[in-house]
Amino acid sequence: MIVVMKQDATRAQITNVTARIERLGCRVHLSEGEERTIIGVIGNGRPLDREQIERMDGVERAVPILRPFKLASREFHPQDTVVMVNGVPIGGRQVVVMAGPCAVESHDQLLETARAVKKAGALVLRGGAFKPRTSPYSFQGLGEEGLRLLAKARDETGLPIVTEVMAPQAVPLVTTYADILQVGARNMQNYVLLHAVGEAQRPVLLKRGMMSTIEELLMAAEYILSHGNDRVILCERGIRTFETYTRNTLDISAVPLLKQLSHLPVVVDPSHGTGKWELVEPVSRAAVAAGADGLLIEVHHRPEEALSDGAQSLKPARFAALMQGLRPVAEAVGRTL
Amino acid sequence: MIVVMKQDATRAQITNVTARIERLGCRVHLSEGEERTIIGVIGNGRPLDREQIERMDGVERAVPILRPFKLASREFHPQDTVVMVNGVPIGGRQVVVMAGPCAVESHDQLLETARAVKKAGALVLRGGAFKPRTSPYSFQGLGEEGLRLLAKARDETGLPIVTEVMAPQAVPLVTTYADILQVGARNMQNYVLLHAVGEAQRPVLLKRGMMSTIEELLMAAEYILSHGNDRVILCERGIRTFETYTRNTLDISAVPLLKQLSHLPVVVDPSHGTGKWELVEPVSRAAVAAGADGLLIEVHHRPEEALSDGAQSLKPARFAALMQGLRPVAEAVGRTL
Amino acid sequence: MIVVMKQDATRAQITNVTARIERLGCRVHLSEGEERTIIGVIGNGRPLDREQIERMDGVERAVPILRPFKLASREFHPQDTVVMVNGVPIGGRQVVVMAGPCAVESHDQLLETARAVKKAGALVLRGGAFKPRTSPYSFQGLGEEGLRLLAKARDETGLPIVTEVMAPQAVPLVTTYADILQVGARNMQNYVLLHAVGEAQRPVLLKRGMMSTIEELLMAAEYILSHGNDRVILCERGIRTFETYTRNTLDISAVPLLKQLSHLPVVVDPSHGTGKWELVEPVSRAAVAAGADGLLIEVHHRPEEALSDGAQSLKPARFAALMQGLRPVAEAVGRTL
Amino acid sequence: MIVVMKQDATRAQITNVTARIERLGCRVHLSEGEERTIIGVIGNGRPLDREQIERMDGVERAVPILRPFKLASREFHPQDTVVMVNGVPIGGRQVVVMAGPCAVESHDQLLETARAVKKAGALVLRGGAFKPRTSPYSFQGLGEEGLRLLAKARDETGLPIVTEVMAPQAVPLVTTYADILQVGARNMQNYVLLHAVGEAQRPVLLKRGMMSTIEELLMAAEYILSHGNDRVILCERGIRTFETYTRNTLDISAVPLLKQLSHLPVVVDPSHGTGKWELVEPVSRAAVAAGADGLLIEVHHRPEEALSDGAQSLKPARFAALMQGLRPVAEAVGRTL
Repeated sequence: MIVVMKQDATRAQITNVTARIERLGCRVHLSEGEERTIIGVIGNGRPLDREQIERMDGVERAVPILRPFKLASREFHPQDTVVMVNGVPIGGRQVVVMAGPCAVESHDQLLETARAVKKAGALVLRGGAFKPRTSPYSFQGLGEEGLRLLAKARDETGLPIVTEVMAPQAVPLVTTYADILQVGARNMQNYVLLHAVGEAQRPVLLKRGMMSTIEELLMAAEYILSHGNDRVILCERGIRTFETYTRNTLDISAVPLLKQLSHLPVVVDPSHGTGKWELVEPVSRAAVAAGADGLLIEVHHRPEEALSDGAQSLKPARFAALMQGLRPVAEAVGRTL
Repeated sequence: MIVVMKQDATRAQITNVTARIERLGCRVHLSEGEERTIIGVIGNGRPLDREQIERMDGVERAVPILRPFKLASREFHPQDTVVMVNGVPIGGRQVVVMAGPCAVESHDQLLETARAVKKAGALVLRGGAFKPRTSPYSFQGLGEEGLRLLAKARDETGLPIVTEVMAPQAVPLVTTYADILQVGARNMQNYVLLHAVGEAQRPVLLKRGMMSTIEELLMAAEYILSHGNDRVILCERGIRTFETYTRNTLDISAVPLLKQLSHLPVVVDPSHGTGKWELVEPVSRAAVAAGADGLLIEVHHRPEEALSDGAQSLKPARFAALMQGLRPVAEAVGRTL
Repeated sequence: MIVVMKQDATRAQITNVTARIERLGCRVHLSEGEERTIIGVIGNGRPLDREQIERMDGVERAVPILRPFKLASREFHPQDTVVMVNGVPIGGRQVVVMAGPCAVESHDQLLETARAVKKAGALVLRGGAFKPRTSPYSFQGLGEEGLRLLAKARDETGLPIVTEVMAPQAVPLVTTYADILQVGARNMQNYVLLHAVGEAQRPVLLKRGMMSTIEELLMAAEYILSHGNDRVILCERGIRTFETYTRNTLDISAVPLLKQLSHLPVVVDPSHGTGKWELVEPVSRAAVAAGADGLLIEVHHRPEEALSDGAQSLKPARFAALMQGLRPVAEAVGRTL
Repeated sequence: MIVVMKQDATRAQITNVTARIERLGCRVHLSEGEERTIIGVIGNGRPLDREQIERMDGVERAVPILRPFKLASREFHPQDTVVMVNGVPIGGRQVVVMAGPCAVESHDQLLETARAVKKAGALVLRGGAFKPRTSPYSFQGLGEEGLRLLAKARDETGLPIVTEVMAPQAVPLVTTYADILQVGARNMQNYVLLHAVGEAQRPVLLKRGMMSTIEELLMAAEYILSHGNDRVILCERGIRTFETYTRNTLDISAVPLLKQLSHLPVVVDPSHGTGKWELVEPVSRAAVAAGADGLLIEVHHRPEEALSDGAQSLKPARFAALMQGLRPVAEAVGRTL
C-alpha cells in the first residue's frame, strides 16, 4: 500500500502514520517529495485495511497495490483449474454448453427440452426449481418438486444438472439433487450463502452480480474458496448500464480478463446477458471467440408459454442451429465443442 | 398493457394475440394505424406477464401501463404511513436521526457512542452485529455478542436499536434483540430474507440496493408488505455509477419521488451514500431539505481505529455540530428535529 | 404514440388531449379501461413530441411506439449499405481492418506503422492529426502537418486513411486529405459538427459516445443522413460503466443489435473498448464472431513512447499475429478477412 | 506518481523505468518489498503521462498521486472565486437563481416569463437561442433572432442573460449578446469550443456532461482557465445512470465536493437534473442546503406548449412558490436569496 500525505501534513502526523504501520507488522519506506510525502508500506503478506489508514490525520489517500483476492488469483495458482462434473471437464479444451429451461415447469416440458439439448450437443442440463423474481406475484418455481424432476431428467439423459440455490438453509437439500450449485446474480454478495456453498461438496457456478465489478466477483469466489470448496466456475451474465435496448450489457472483455486474473473456469450466459433471443446466437459466438470455457443458454419448447424469461429463450430448433454454427468458431480458436 | 404489433404482422397473428389476452380474462381494444396495429389490454386488476405476450409471433413490444407494485403504492394507501418504534414515530413531522457505529466493537465503544449521539439528539441507535464484508478476511461482526451489547446500550440510554439481519435463519435471533430489522443494500433482492422479515413482528428498514432502481426498491418493499408486515421504512443510501470520487452517488431525487409513489417513510444514509465524512454534513442537510423523514449516520469515537467504514464515520463532536446545523434546515421545511 | 391518462383524469381533460392530437393531424383511438383511459394516437408519419403531450393536465405518461430514427433504420432501407472507400467496400462480405497509431507523431513513425499494418492485412490506415485530450496539457496532435503525413502514407502504401475531425470549421480542411472523416465519441452529440460532416462529400465513421445509448447513436447517424450524406459507418467503442479494470465496457451485443435495427455498416474499436493491449486480440475475435463489418485497431512501433493511448496499442508483430488468428474466426462466420 | 512493478519484473526492467523517469526530469525513490518493487516518482511540478510509464516492460500499474487539474484547484487558489455578472456576484453569500424558458420561442413568451421570474426574485434570465436536440427533426432554436429577443428582455428587465453557445465559430456572435456563455452538457468535452470560450471576454457557465466525472468537469474548467478566462461557473445537472424514473440522477454530493476541490462557484440545474417539474422544488431546496451558489431553473408560462423540455418546466406561479420556500432554507445555511 502507498500512503499519500496531505500537502500540509505535519512532521508529527507523518511519524504517527509510520508508527502505526510498523505496529501492524509492516515496514515503511519514506519518499519526501517537493509537494508531499509518500509512505510506501512493505507488507507482511496480509492485506492492510485501507480505510483505517485513510482516516488518520494528515493522510490524503491510501492506494492499495496488491489485488485483494488471493486463492482466486492466477499468481497463487498459475495452472487453469478444471472442474470435473460427473465426468464432464469444465475449463479444459472443450467448450461446455449448459442448456435448458429458465424454470422447471413440468415433467414433460423438462424432459422434452433435456432430450433436445442433449441431441444438439449440450453437456449439462440447466433448470431453475427456486426462482428469484422481482415481483412477489410472479411464479417462484416448483421448489423440491422441481429438483426431483431435474434428477429424473438426469437419470433419463445422463446430463449432469445445474440449478440455483437461493438460501443457506436450502444448500443441503439442493446438494442432494444437483451436480452444480448455482449462486444467482442477485445473491453474489449474499455472504451467508457463499459461506454455505463453500462448505458444500459440490461445484459452484457463481454468477456475476448485475452491478458487481470483476474484483467483487473474484472476492465472492474467494469467500467460497476460503471455506474449502475449490470447484468454482465463474459466470459473466451481463451488467447493468444505462442502455435499455438490451436487458443487460454483456461485458465481453470480462472473459479474457478473468482468465488472466484467475485460474478458475469462465462461462458466459448470453440469455440473461442480452435478454433477447435474437441476440443469443451472435453473442454466444462472441463469447467462445473471446475464450469462454462454456455457455449457459435458455431453451424452451414454447417460449411464449414459459413461466419466466421466455423473451430470451430459444426454441430447440434454433438452439440446434446455434450449436452447429458454434462448432467452427470453437475450432477457429483451438477448442472443441 | 399496450401491445404493439410488428409492421408486417399478419391478420392471423393479431387474432392469436387478442385470443390469448381474452383467455387471460382481459378485454381488448384494437387500433389499426397506418403503420401498425396496436392492441390495448383492458385489465382485470391483475398484472399481465409482459414477456409472455412479447414472445408471441408478430408482437414487437408490450408496454406495461400500471406500476407493478400495489401495497407499497400511494394510490393504494393515500395517507403517509407512520411507523412507531418504541414510541418514536418515523414518517411524521419530526425528522428522526438514527446514529451509531458502523459495527459494534466493544461495550465501551458502543456505550460511549450511544450516550454521545443521544445527547446530540439522535432518537435511534444504529450498530452492526453481523457485517456483510466484500472480503472474507475482513471483520465480520461480533454476532450475537454484538446484539447483547446493543440491547444493553438500549437499556442504559432508552434509545431503540436498529441492526442488520443477513440471513433468513437469523431473523428470530435478531428479532429478540432489535427494535428495527435492517435489510442491507446487498440483500435487497434476497427474496428468502424479504419473506422472513415479512413474517417477523418488527419494523423493517429496507436499504436500496446499490444497483437497484426505485421500482425494484418498491417491489422489494412489496415482498415484505405482501407477507403481512406493513411497517417498512425505505432507505436511500446511494447507487453505483461511474463516478469514483465518492463511494456511491446519493440519489437525492429518490427522496421526493419515493414520497410521491409510496406512503412509506423514507430515510437517507449519507454515510454510505458518500463514503466520506467531509460530505456527510452537507448531504444530511440536503436530504432533510428534500423531504427525508430521517437520517442514518455513522458515528465513531475513533474513526481511525474503527474496524469497518471509518472513512465515512463522524466523531461525536462533529455529529453534535451536524445536528445543530440541521435543526434550522428542518424548520425551514416545516419539520422538527 | 400511446397516451395513458391519470386514474382521476376528468372527461374534460381527456377531450382536451384528443382535441390537441387531432389538431396535430393525427387520429385518435380511445380505450376506456376499468382503471384508466388510454388514448392511441394514429400518426400521420411524422413523430409527435412526447413531452408536449405529457405536460397536459390529466396525462400520466405518453409512450412512443415508433423508433425515432428513420433514414438510419432497416425498415426504411432493408438492404445492407456498403460504403465504398477508394475501392474498399465496408459492410460487405469482407471484414475490413483499419489500423495505425492513435496519433500521428512523425513521418517515420507513421510510415513504418503503415507499411507494417498493410503487410499484415489492414485495408485502411488510421491516425489522429487532431486529438481530443482530457487535459489541456497533453499532446493535442500535429494538426495539418499530421494530415499531410497521412496523405503521404496513403501515397506510399495505397491505403485509404481515416482521421478525426473535431470542429465544424475544420471539415473542409480534413476533407481535403482524408478518405473517411471520423467523428469521435466525445463529439457524437456535437450537432453542429454532425451537420457539417453531413454536408461533406466523404464517408463518415461515427463513434458511439461513451455514455450514449444505441438509440442516440442512431439519432446521431440520422443527423448526418438527413443532411444528405448517406455513407455513414457506425462504430462501437465501449461505453462507460462502473467497472474500472477496463477503460470502457465494450458492448458486444450492440453489434448484432445495430445490424438488426439499421442498414449501416458496424465496426468495432477494441483498443478504446478495452484500453488494454492484452485484451485487444480476444475482443477482436469476439467482435468478428458477433458480426462486425470491420475493426479499428491501434498499432504503434514503440507503444511505450507513444504520445497518446499507448497502453492500448499493439506492436506490429502482435498485430500480425492477431490478423493471423482472426482469419479462421472470420471464415467460421462466413466472412473473409 | 507511484509505479508498481510486476512480481516477476527483472532488474533490467526496473533500471529501464527509473532511467526513463529521470530523463523526464523527475527523481526516483525505490522501495523493494517482499513481493514487488515500488518506484516513487518525485515530480518536477509537471504531470507525468501515466500511460507512457504503464506501457513499459515489467510495469504493472502507475498510480497518479496528484490531481490532474491545477488552475481549477483550491490548493492553487484557496479563496472562493466570485464571478461578477453585470453587478450580480455569483459565488458569494447570496444564492443566485437563474430562471427562464428552456428555449426562446417568441417575444411575448420570453418577456412574460422574464418579468415573472424577476418579480419572484431571479437575478439572471436564462433562455436558449441555439438548442442541442437529440433529433434532427426537433426545434433547433431561433438562432440570432433568439439572441436579439434575449437582449431586448435584458433591456426591459435589467436581468443579465445566460445562453448556450454550441460551436466555436458562434462564440463571437453569442458574446455580442450574452452576459454568460453557457457550455452545454453534451459539449463539456468539445475542446475546440472550450478553447474558444477560454479566449472570450465573458463569464462561462460550464455544465457537467451527463457522462462526465467530477475530475473531467474540473479538467474541462482547466481548459477554459488555461486559455485565460478565469470566470468559470460550474454546473451540476445530473448524470446518466441505470435509473429510469428520473431523466438524470442529480449528484448532490458533487456540490460540496466541487466546493472542496475547487475555488469556482457551483450552481445546480434541478430541471435537467430530474426531468420532472414535480421534483424541481424539493431538489432545489436540497441543492441550496448542500451549499450550491445558485440554481438554474426552467420556467414557462404554458409548459404544455413549450417547444422543448416542457416536462421539466415550472409555471410562473409555482416558481414564485419555490422561491418563497427556498428563502428559509438559504437562511438556515447562512445564505441569502
